[in-house]
Amino acid sequence: MDGGNSAAEESASQVEEEVGRVVEEARQLQESAASHIARSFSEEQSLRQRANSIDSSVRRCRSLLHSCLSRRLIDAKLADKLEDELQRAKCVVSDGDAAAFLPTKSQGGFLRMFLGPINVRASRKDVQLKVKEEYNSYRDRTALLFLFFPSALLILRSWLWNGCLPAFPVQLYQAWLLFLYTGLALRENILRVNGSDIRRWWIYHHYCAMLMALVSLTWEIKGQPNCAAKQRGVQLFLQWAMMQGVAMLLQNRYQRQRLYTRIALGKAKRMDVVWGETAGVDGQLWLLCPILFILQGFEAYVGLQLLMTAFVRVVTEWQVIFCGFLLVLMAVGNFFNTVQTLLTKSRFKAKMKRVKSKPELD
Amino acid sequence: MDGGNSAAEESASQVEEEVGRVVEEARQLQESAASHIARSFSEEQSLRQRANSIDSSVRRCRSLLHSCLSRRLIDAKLADKLEDELQRAKCVVSDGDAAAFLPTKSQGGFLRMFLGPINVRASRKDVQLKVKEEYNSYRDRTALLFLFFPSALLILRSWLWNGCLPAFPVQLYQAWLLFLYTGLALRENILRVNGSDIRRWWIYHHYCAMLMALVSLTWEIKGQPNCAAKQRGVQLFLQWAMMQGVAMLLQNRYQRQRLYTRIALGKAKRMDVVWGETAGVDGQLWLLCPILFILQGFEAYVGLQLLMTAFVRVVTEWQVIFCGFLLVLMAVGNFFNTVQTLLTKSRFKAKMKRVKSKPELD
Repeated sequence: MDGGNSAAEESASQVEEEVGRVVEEARQLQESAASHIARSFSEEQSLRQRANSIDSSVRRCRSLLHSCLSRRLIDAKLADKLEDELQRAKCVVSDGDAAAFLPTKSQGGFLRMFLGPINVRASRKDVQLKVKEEYNSYRDRTALLFLFFPSALLILRSWLWNGCLPAFPVQLYQAWLLFLYTGLALRENILRVNGSDIRRWWIYHHYCAMLMALVSLTWEIKGQPNCAAKQRGVQLFLQWAMMQGVAMLLQNRYQRQRLYTRIALGKAKRMDVVWGETAGVDGQLWLLCPILFILQGFEAYVGLQLLMTAFVRVVTEWQVIFCGFLLVLMAVGNFFNTVQTLLTKSRFKAKMKRVKSKPELD
Repeated sequence: MDGGNSAAEESASQVEEEVGRVVEEARQLQESAASHIARSFSEEQSLRQRANSIDSSVRRCRSLLHSCLSRRLIDAKLADKLEDELQRAKCVVSDGDAAAFLPTKSQGGFLRMFLGPINVRASRKDVQLKVKEEYNSYRDRTALLFLFFPSALLILRSWLWNGCLPAFPVQLYQAWLLFLYTGLALRENILRVNGSDIRRWWIYHHYCAMLMALVSLTWEIKGQPNCAAKQRGVQLFLQWAMMQGVAMLLQNRYQRQRLYTRIALGKAKRMDVVWGETAGVDGQLWLLCPILFILQGFEAYVGLQLLMTAFVRVVTEWQVIFCGFLLVLMAVGNFFNTVQTLLTKSRFKAKMKRVKSKPELD
């Protein structure tokens, strides 16, 4: 019995010791975690301050340079070189690793409305690129559905439903559109916060599309009699959506190639990341643009047709007028923004040519 | 001229120097930012490993303890004390600062579907609490609208619209519900990722509510003749929504008080954070519960009424049946989950009493 007792005492003290060790480890972990969080918070604060001060230094230098140049106190060639160097310094701050610690661009009302004040900015560059890559592959999957869903509806309409769409599948499609555009708008806002240079209009465009999908859900799909005339708007819309699918697939290919170029350049020479924007994708742009313009024309046509049905054929549903108006608005906005993007790109390319040819002249 | 030239040279070299300094600062900033990111990444990795190893140590100790206890190798009182200590060590890992570095609970399909693979976890405890506080104030604002919107519709119905609701305001309300429930579901998923112990059912409940709002949008609001009978479902639903508003306001008060208790306890003694769950809010719980149960009963009643309209009065719209079914499902689920929450709370309280009274016995 004595031996048993001492064995019991021994294993009891062993367990007690073990537990004490675990508790001590937990305490230490808590301490190091707390100190790590405090330390990295203060380090980030100091990086943020340095980034801000460089930002204002760049601005100051630039105005100094311009005033010197206007008073002819500095050689034009030297001024150009200094301007380039300042541009690079600015790129380091706004596009390099330090960018993660800059005061967050306001996340925008849309994200705050859905998510609250949570931070969606990734601090590591490779995570940011992964987010963008995933967004592209999401768009790819989406584009296939964009092609498949309306085609299926149109094919079934003529094969199975005798030219008259039933309400349920169309409403299912509209609900999917609403979900899709909400997801795209959220993701694009997140990309913007993570430093993407996506144009504001494309996000507004998705807000419009969300609104249209929502309104179209309340829009009663009318059937017989005279189904073809009543569903003319829906039919046109589905045809436009199919074309949209093709354009999205092409656009995605273009965007992805551009991203890969950026990643490759970023790995080779981080400072040069933004200089590689248009490399290697020019050929595809000239295939993409006509398709985009045709699509925008067709979008405006569908919108006008809807407005016509509302005003001429005395369909008094407000949804028809509203959707028609939105489609025309989106077509016009898309057109102007595509043109502006092309102009920016060609201006950028011209500047790049000038920059590249100069060192040979010197 | 010579004096002018040398002044020009001087200011040119001054600008050049200044630019050189800015470029050098930018380079240094880039370096420190990169090294800060790399360092904190590796530190986080090591914290994560330590947290994982403590987690498995706790499990090992616990099974050791149980085997000792079953073979009577250890005193029961000592075993209880050690068990408590292990529980505390576990709490430090899963609820303290180190929790931020544990392998993220899978963010769940819902967040991934809308946001992609972005990380929504805040690493600092105070940010996490801020997120929760903001969620509560969002719910407060929402509850007021929840009270105001349906009341306004019902009042206008009898005063202005002669007992027959027009379609547009009701659809506006349904669209708002859809937006609201999507936002709540997203925020609650974010809270879960940030370590909230919200029950899964309440999130599923909001998925159901989203689905119902979506379906109700496609449900045509019929008017005259015989408006009162056709809109019976809508009217019941609006009355239920008003009651829901009152219950939400009460629930929010309760939740907020609970959060404040947690924050206060957390500041006083971080390890005890989870032990303060039910402190100081018991009185309100006994006001809240009957209201919740009445609400759930009414929810089931509205659902059954909808199903009745569909089966007895030969309204063949699938939306009516679907919404009725969803309401009954939600009522039953809410009931079981409220009961389970109450049971857990009372069991927890009993245990706390036992724990608190023991030190005096010892």
